[in-house]
Amino acid sequence: MNPVTANRRHFEDLAEGETVALGSVTLTREMIVGWAKEFDPLPFHLDEEVARKSLLGGLAASGWQTGALILRLLADTFLNTIAAAGGLGFSNLKWKKPVMVGDTILPTATVASLRRSAHHPDRGIMTIDLVVKNQKGEEVMTMTLANLVETRMEGP
Amino acid sequence: MNPVTANRRHFEDLAEGETVALGSVTLTREMIVGWAKEFDPLPFHLDEEVARKSLLGGLAASGWQTGALILRLLADTFLNTIAAAGGLGFSNLKWKKPVMVGDTILPTATVASLRRSAHHPDRGIMTIDLVVKNQKGEEVMTMTLANLVETRMEGP
Repeated sequence: MNPVTANRRHFEDLAEGETVALGSVTLTREMIVGWAKEFDPLPFHLDEEVARKSLLGGLAASGWQTGALILRLLADTFLNTIAAAGGLGFSNLKWKKPVMVGDTILPTATVASLRRSAHHPDRGIMTIDLVVKNQKGEEVMTMTLANLVETRMEGP
Repeated sequence: MNPVTANRRHFEDLAEGETVALGSVTLTREMIVGWAKEFDPLPFHLDEEVARKSLLGGLAASGWQTGALILRLLADTFLNTIAAAGGLGFSNLKWKKPVMVGDTILPTATVASLRRSAHHPDRGIMTIDLVVKNQKGEEVMTMTLANLVETRMEGP
């Protein structure tokens, strides 16, 4: 048994429909511009004046930054409480509304499906529906993730 | 006309099938662990020993880090040469193989589809197929992005 995850919930302990509120994070101007400089240096993520005239209507976070901040909340609040073994990918990611300076994002994760691996008895595949709202209750981002989770059976 | 993007290629100047090699980036141990501490603090992204015993088989980058690094290459090499106006989302993102310490990732972007907005004559929707290979030519990540691009027509 993996000593790191031995005391955590495993694949068998999860239930479809289980929902976890992942906490929240508020985006400051410094966070938005700092991230954009490093990873997403498009003019409308870097400059307030340009942003105001853009389709976003103001300085908004890179959608990938929103995703990374949510990943951190997901890791702290859920993935690090279970025997998570790695991400496989995600489907249907939508940025529905911009996340502006001062906005707070509040993601919720729901276990959408649980499927044992056909070939590897030591793991299963969990999909998670993530819904991210802002402080006004508006959906800003949705996606479905697929993650491997260890079962209680030993690997080969 | 948007002064920031006036001299860039617009929606009308793009062609389906256009392919851009986005350059490359090599992941060091410091990059992988640094990112994981901030955004994806799962034990197998932080600790070499734990990683070796995990399904990944060694210290591997958070898939979300791979994505952010590719986004940076995409912005520098392509999005900042056209009148890109914001991301709408992703579909079908797959992490096919782990990206390990010392691996180099080489993404290629292909314009997969171009569609004018039905309601907004000043913008169109471009989808991009991204294929990311490592230095051995193996695919490590694939995804499709949807982005808004300004047309040469004025908005309302």
